[in-house]
Formats: sequence, structure tokens, C-alpha cells
Amino acid sequence: MMEKWRITQRLLRHSSKLLFDRPLNRSASHISAFRFASGHRETFVERGLGSASSIKYRRFGSAATEIQRNTSFSTLNVDDISYFKEILGEKNVIQDKDVLLNANTDWMRKYKGSSKLLLQPKTTNEVSQILKYCNSRRLAVVPQGGNTGLVGGSVPVFDEVKSCHVIINVGSMNNIIAFDKVSGTLVCEAGCILENLVSFLDDQGFIMPLDLGAKGSCQIGGNVSTNAGGLRLVRYGSLHGNVLGLEVVLANGDVLDMLGTLRKDNTGYDLKHLFIGSEGSLGIVTKVSILTPLKLSSVNLAFLACKDYFSCQKLLLEAKSKLGEILSAFEFLDNQAMDLVRYFWLEKLKVLNHLEGARNPLHSSMHNFYVLIETTGSNESYDREKIEAFLLRSMEDGLISDGVLAQDINQASSFWRIREGVPEALMKAGAVYKYDLSLPVEKMYDLVEEMRLRLGQTAKVIGYGHLGDGNLHLNISAPQYNDAIFAQIEPYVYEWTSKHRGSISAEHGLGLMKANKIFYSKSPETVQVMGSIKKLLDPNGILNPYKVLPYLLSSYH
Amino acid sequence: MMEKWRITQRLLRHSSKLLFDRPLNRSASHISAFRFASGHRETFVERGLGSASSIKYRRFGSAATEIQRNTSFSTLNVDDISYFKEILGEKNVIQDKDVLLNANTDWMRKYKGSSKLLLQPKTTNEVSQILKYCNSRRLAVVPQGGNTGLVGGSVPVFDEVKSCHVIINVGSMNNIIAFDKVSGTLVCEAGCILENLVSFLDDQGFIMPLDLGAKGSCQIGGNVSTNAGGLRLVRYGSLHGNVLGLEVVLANGDVLDMLGTLRKDNTGYDLKHLFIGSEGSLGIVTKVSILTPLKLSSVNLAFLACKDYFSCQKLLLEAKSKLGEILSAFEFLDNQAMDLVRYFWLEKLKVLNHLEGARNPLHSSMHNFYVLIETTGSNESYDREKIEAFLLRSMEDGLISDGVLAQDINQASSFWRIREGVPEALMKAGAVYKYDLSLPVEKMYDLVEEMRLRLGQTAKVIGYGHLGDGNLHLNISAPQYNDAIFAQIEPYVYEWTSKHRGSISAEHGLGLMKANKIFYSKSPETVQVMGSIKKLLDPNGILNPYKVLPYLLSSYH
Repeated sequence: MMEKWRITQRLLRHSSKLLFDRPLNRSASHISAFRFASGHRETFVERGLGSASSIKYRRFGSAATEIQRNTSFSTLNVDDISYFKEILGEKNVIQDKDVLLNANTDWMRKYKGSSKLLLQPKTTNEVSQILKYCNSRRLAVVPQGGNTGLVGGSVPVFDEVKSCHVIINVGSMNNIIAFDKVSGTLVCEAGCILENLVSFLDDQGFIMPLDLGAKGSCQIGGNVSTNAGGLRLVRYGSLHGNVLGLEVVLANGDVLDMLGTLRKDNTGYDLKHLFIGSEGSLGIVTKVSILTPLKLSSVNLAFLACKDYFSCQKLLLEAKSKLGEILSAFEFLDNQAMDLVRYFWLEKLKVLNHLEGARNPLHSSMHNFYVLIETTGSNESYDREKIEAFLLRSMEDGLISDGVLAQDINQASSFWRIREGVPEALMKAGAVYKYDLSLPVEKMYDLVEEMRLRLGQTAKVIGYGHLGDGNLHLNISAPQYNDAIFAQIEPYVYEWTSKHRGSISAEHGLGLMKANKIFYSKSPETVQVMGSIKKLLDPNGILNPYKVLPYLLSSYH
Repeated sequence: MMEKWRITQRLLRHSSKLLFDRPLNRSASHISAFRFASGHRETFVERGLGSASSIKYRRFGSAATEIQRNTSFSTLNVDDISYFKEILGEKNVIQDKDVLLNANTDWMRKYKGSSKLLLQPKTTNEVSQILKYCNSRRLAVVPQGGNTGLVGGSVPVFDEVKSCHVIINVGSMNNIIAFDKVSGTLVCEAGCILENLVSFLDDQGFIMPLDLGAKGSCQIGGNVSTNAGGLRLVRYGSLHGNVLGLEVVLANGDVLDMLGTLRKDNTGYDLKHLFIGSEGSLGIVTKVSILTPLKLSSVNLAFLACKDYFSCQKLLLEAKSKLGEILSAFEFLDNQAMDLVRYFWLEKLKVLNHLEGARNPLHSSMHNFYVLIETTGSNESYDREKIEAFLLRSMEDGLISDGVLAQDINQASSFWRIREGVPEALMKAGAVYKYDLSLPVEKMYDLVEEMRLRLGQTAKVIGYGHLGDGNLHLNISAPQYNDAIFAQIEPYVYEWTSKHRGSISAEHGLGLMKANKIFYSKSPETVQVMGSIKKLLDPNGILNPYKVLPYLLSSYH
């Protein structure tokens, strides 16, 4: 065994260098990354988007130009404001222009609303009073969490002519209510920021079952409402499996207390699942009960290079079989994604002067694909032996052409920064058309290659994502948004996905961007039932209008 | 390490004997156990229950004596029979008395219906035609799988006066449609028997994410419709996390194709969850797509004794922390359960002459509690070392007073037979009042002890179940059903459970037995929404009437 280990070390460590000379704490870098983006966003919005409403809908064709405004909504008036101030107090009824500009603009700076009012309730009862009032007054409501969504689901839209939208942000409802160490059940308010929950649990020896790049800003209520996926799904499964209970306020103000903390409960229909992933269109999540896994002591992270996509696939199968129960992430990015992120970090770090330089641990230009494999287990030496044996064999079998196994937490953080830096790098690189697709693993990369053929030199096609879950993030990067490019992409990408029985939204949701595209992934009968349920729970259609479902199914005149 | 291992061996193996001298194959024994029960049932029904309709509802108070018959259902007539024969063919329209007697009687022989018609469709289209017809004719429909439920959810009721019920059994729809080894996704028809799926997957190197005692009879459609739990939930989670897609036929005959095979799909409301656990009251599941875990090579099973319940609890926490990712089952039974099952096997095996004798591997009368711990992992030697180290430490810490680690598959099977034999042993022992409760682990056994105090010598109180999931099977065994005993049990058990925020049905569902008890575990507002959804999807209330929801919410006149 010792001999084998030495060979592994030799094979693996020949390229083992720190990506950054002075490594950052992974979480801290996230927060600053988000702050950076947020600062940048404000500038961008002030300079550009404010007067660019025509751009919004023309250049982003998937924003469904056919949608009519719902004329049944009322216009916000002074009496409404007075009422809200009465129940929430002056300071939680926000009319400040700068704050509203932020709340009206999505993280991508792609969708922008014109709401004049942001409400910040502090209790479930306040949420209930707000919704009851809005429902009776027919005011449209946009539930907003960390506003980190990518499909225009968290900002108001079609509000320019008549001010009829109220934004409700439950960020002030950010208390941890209970944590039970025996069962690992965490109960908290919906406004808790994911990263704060992660820190809290870390002290208790537990982890959250989900982990996403946006964790420094996103809220657990938003995570639940969008059924967020992320990096740990391959190990811990989706929120449908991990959320044990919810408290939800319906459009009419009724509070549904489904806040169970039990692992098993077969008493009637499990309604909470309706609210997981319905993007705030059926109710506002106010409290969450979630099963949290024990923090296991041993974590390993390998950054690997593969010569082709077929090797990535075979490596996934081998990892599932050989690493089995300790596999906790299997991510991939292609050469183009790696080039972009390397350039981005170089630029960003130079500007911020945080670090002196960045190097690709595997000499990027030499490889076609990069894979991150994380293991999490309870025994350090067994796990290390297991992953080293796995890597050794994979190298011998030619599945891996190069690789580094992180030697410490800092190096692991720097590897994760490469993977998690891709979305931000894309944002910086210019215009970007983003697609979040579920596809059979063996077909997944064919689409990236086909898109390269279709687009030629006009745009860069980047493929990365959660290979272990069959989730491709297809991103098309161009100097600027361009109708000709767009026409080459849509509806082709959706048709291709539909033809291969994929999903046009693996984890981002439909929002405004894909509300009318739902039929590419769901049958008409199923969508019809969704519409009936929307009408049942929100008969006036006030909750997150124009999102998730095709317009005619979610708006009633 | 070697020294430690030797000590473990010594400590563990001093009582390591085969439970049965000539061990049976675990699965085979299951099938025969079910056959045996089924044979017995027929005899029992003919002799006793046929004329004992007054017993049914009075002595089983939870069968809700207040329920009125729904008078809006039509009476089955010759035209109906002709129509069904036309679409299904003569032989799939069953009117045979003996077959119907079986289909009308539940596994517990507690609930008995009087339906005159059993339909056995072979395709989704046939199910659709049947339902469309029944809906228009207002004929009540009972969807039935393996009929192994324990709460009266799978047999017709209140059918004595006017024959208005049709039983639909999809057991003939038992094809495996597809299996993808890359993703581990199995797609099959709803009538597939769980054990057949287990065998099929075994050949492919995969397992089902659920395992139950009834696997030789229960069907996957029934498992999904009842959100079956079982022995592996502690590792793989519930069906809400594992079912990837469903095909469901609604009451009006509409087919909902939600048969996705993707791990991630956030396109609209995830409606399949409405049908998982709704006990056939919202639609009939006709096809299932399910994520199956890779079969891992290393399985260990320990049968342990603990001196008190507190030790069991501490052992659970230690197992979660020390065995971590390889823990796959954590079951417990108390002394009384052990005595019962030992006696049962002795009797049964004598009669069947299958085996020459049975011995308790741990000299039952000496211990108060028994715990089964299973590990499943990818590396035999690591896992063995891990569980042995864990057991050694637990013995040193005084958490375990005795223990055996199974030395081969036969011994493991015999350990499982003890745990899985409890329900049958209870059936044989006389009358049994069964409760399937979710409770906080630290409170769980208090209820068993309180019930013993309440009941004194009049009945035996048995506690066993899935400790790892907080799921107690509280069983009260008496020579015969008795109003005085029943009055001591209900509503006390439900009130106690509700007071501790538990669930009155962890995994068995509500069926007829607990339809009116739903408020012990769910808030009125939530139950109201369930009723609205029932009305939306089944406006005539034809699907599994009188079950799951309180009568007034599921029946419309």
C-alpha cells in the first residue's frame, strides 16, 4: 500500500502548486466577490440600464415579448403606503430611490422593474397582513430573497406604465429558531443568508445539504422557493428530500403551518413540495425546517485534467463506483471556461490588489477538460487512500492526463474558486446568454460542440457544470448582445434539449425568462394542472406575476 | 490495528452463533412468509370476518364510525360490466367470488369491503379509459397494489348496501421499461413487485433505495402512492427525494406525463410530489422513474444488546458520527418484541418444518433492548475495521452490553428475520392495535412505558421500529379486541403524539383508519388546502373515497 501511495504522490504532485501565492479564505472571497458585483451593478444600472428598457426585451428574446400587461392590478396609492407603515413601522416601508434601484434590478442586470415600494416584514404575521391587504387591493407582489436568481424571477416586471408592484423582502426575518443535534434538524426564518447558516452549523459540527456560489447573498427562503441545486446535490440530493417542513403565507394571507421537524410524516398530502421550486408564485416561504448532515472530518479535493469528454464521463462512472459513499461533488469545466476564469482572476486580483498573481494549477492550455472531484467521509486515512488509489488507477487507465490533490484547505479553496469563478468571469467578459440544462450525461457535451459549429467565430461557447447530476451550464459569450447571435441560439437550444428529453431549467427555475418555454420540458396536461393549482391558491394572480407559468395560465382578468 | 481487531473479534464473537441451524435465503423466506399469511387470511375471512361487520367498525374505533355513506355514487350495473369487458377483455374483468374476497380484505384482516368488481388493466390507456368512464358514471374506485397496507387504504369500504366500488389493480402492468446504468435511473410500470425490481437491479449492480418487509408482495406504484419508508430511509432518504418522475392518470382520465428521468428539473411546479403519499386519492400511478443507488460491495450487520433506551439513543448518535457515510440501517426492538418474535419463529418453523430450531443470538431474556446496525460501503476491509472499532468503543463505553457481528450473508439474513418477523409475530399473537408514529428520538420510548402503566396486565405493549428515523412502531397486543383496552389507548396515543409534535403516521399513511385523525398532525388551514386540491383533481370524489382526508373534505354531494 505504501508503495502504491508513493507512486500516487509522484504522479499527482508533480504539478501541485498553489494557484494563488497568498490564498484567501474561500468564504471570505465569496462575500467580497458578491460585494464587488453588487457595487459594479449599481454603477452599471445608473449609467446604462435606467434608460435602456428597449434593450431589455428585444435583446433578451427569452423574456417573452408577447406578454401583455395584466390590467387587473391596482395602482399603488398613498393610502396603501400609510397602511403598510401602520403594520410594519416607517423604516420597514422603503421608498428610497437607490435602495429600490437595487431591488428592481436582478443580479445579471438583465431584468429591471420599476416598483416604487419595498416592504421588509419582521414576522410571519406581518407577511400575512401584507398579503391579505395586497390580495384584497389587487396589488402585485414580488417575493425577493437575496436577488441572486438568473432567470428574472426575483424582480418586478411590466411595471413601467402603472405602478402596481410591491417587493417583499424577508431578509429581516433572519433568526435561527431551533437546532436539534440528535436529529440534525435546523429550523430558521426564511431570510437567513445561506452562508450564515453554514457558519452556525459549522460550530455545531453540521453542514447545510446545499452549497452554492451565491451563498454569501442568497437566503434560505429563496433557495427553497427556487429549489436551488448547487455543488452537493450529487451527495445529499435535492431540497425535496432535505426540507422537512415549511411555514408559508398564501396570497390571501392564510398561514400554512407545515413546519414539521420529522424525518417521516405520512399524514395527508405533502403540500410543502408545491412551494419548493414554485418561485414565490404560490406563496411566500417564511420559515424552513431542514435536515442537515453531520460534518464529516475528512474532505479531499482533486483538480484533474481529461483529454476528452468521453474520459470525463468514464471518470464519473468510476468515481461513483470506486469512491461510492464518500463522493460529494463531481464538477467539470471545459478549456474555454478555464481560459476565461483564469483571465478574470488575473484581472480582478490585479485590480483589487488582493493577491500577487494567479496560476492555473494544470497549465490550462494543455488540456481540454477539467474535473473537480470532492470526497467527504469520516476517516481521513481511509478516504485519502481511497481517492489516491482511485486517481492512480484512473491515470493508469488514461482517464486523467494530469491532476493535483489539494494538500490543505487553502489549496482546496483555490480550486473551488476556479469552478465558482466561472459565472462571474462570464459576466465580466461581455454579453452572455446563459442556459441551465439537464441532459443525459452522454449527450450533454454534444450540444456545446453543436453550438460552436453553429456560431463559428461570432461567439465563444462555454460548457461547465455539475456533471455528477447531468447538469450543463451552457454559456454563450459575445462582445455584446446581438440579434443575429440570439437567433442562432434560440429556439435551437430548447428544441435540442427537448428532443433529448432534457430539462430547459435544471436548477435556475423558469422565472420570466423561460415562463413561456415550459412546454419544452413539460406536457400540456401537466402545465394545465399547474395553472389550476396557481388559480386555486392565488385566484387574483398577485404573486410574482408573469413568472414560472405561461402568461395565460397565471393571470386572470 | 491488528491488536484492536483481535480484541473486537473476541468481544463480539463470544456469542456469535447462527440463529437458525439451516439458514434460509432472506428473500425466499419473505415470499413464503407472505404466502403463508395470505393462505391464512382466506381461511380467517371465510370463518370469521364475513359475518362480523359490526366488529369491524366498533372495535376499531379509529375506523371513524361517524362517516356517512356517500350517496352520490352510482350502483354498478350490467352495462358497466359490458363496457369494461369491451376495453379490457373478458379475463381482466374479475367477478370471481374468491378472488374478490381477497381483494376486498386487507392484509391485517381488519378492513373488509364488498366490491363486486376487480379490473386488471394492462396499459395506461386502459387505466385512463376506466377512470374516464367511472368518473362520468360516478363509480367509486379503489386503486390497489399489493394490498399490504396497514391502515385500510387499499380496500373498498361502505359498499355493503349499494355496490358502487370498482377495484383497479395494476399488477398486470409489471414491465421494466428502461434502466440507465450511467445515471442509475430505473423506469418501470407501477405494478412491478418491489422484490422483482430488487432482483433485476441486483443483476445490474444496483439496489432499490427502499426496502420493506412486504417486498415480496407490494408493488412500486403502491410504494410511491403511500410514500413507503422502510429500512433504508436513514441512508437514502424518502421517495420524495428518490422518485424522479411519474406517470399518473387523473380521475377524469387525463394522463399526466411527468415521467422525467433527470436528477434535476426546475421547470414549473413539481406536481409528482402530490401523488407521492396521497394513497391513490388524487390519481393512479401507472409508471415510475426512480433513482437507484449503486450496489456497494461491503455490507456489515451487527445485532446488539443495550441495557436501556438511553444507551440505544447514545449509540445512534455515535453511529451517525463514527460510521457516518456507511451507516445504512439503525433499527431497534425491545425485550417484549424479541420474546414475541422468538416464540413466533419457534412455532412457525416447527409447523412448516423448514428449520430445526431457532435460537436468539443474544439470549433474549437477559437484555432490555436490541439494535440492528447495518453498514454499506465500497471497501470491505475499511468498513469492517470501522464497524469493529465502533463496536469496540461502544462496548468499552458501556453503550452495548452484548453483540454479534454477522459473519456471512446467512447469518445477516437471520438477524434481519428477527426484526422483520415482528409484524407477523404480532398478527399471530392475537388482537393487535398498531400505531406508526414519528417522535423526537429522546421522547419516543416514554410513550411505550406510559402505555404499559396505563394498560397494566390487560395487554402487552411492544415497541420497535426505525430508531434512526425517529419512527416508533407501537403495538399493543391482547388476546382479543376489547373496548376497554381500546378506550385506554385512543385518543391517548394520538394526543400524546400531537403534544410532542410527532406524526400519527410516520410511514403507513392515513387510509381509512386515521383519515379523521389528520388534525393531530396537521393544521386546519393545511388540511383545508388538501381538501381544495382533492376537489380540484377529483371533483366527483371517486378516487379511494373515505380515505386520507376527513370525510367532509373528500366527498361531495
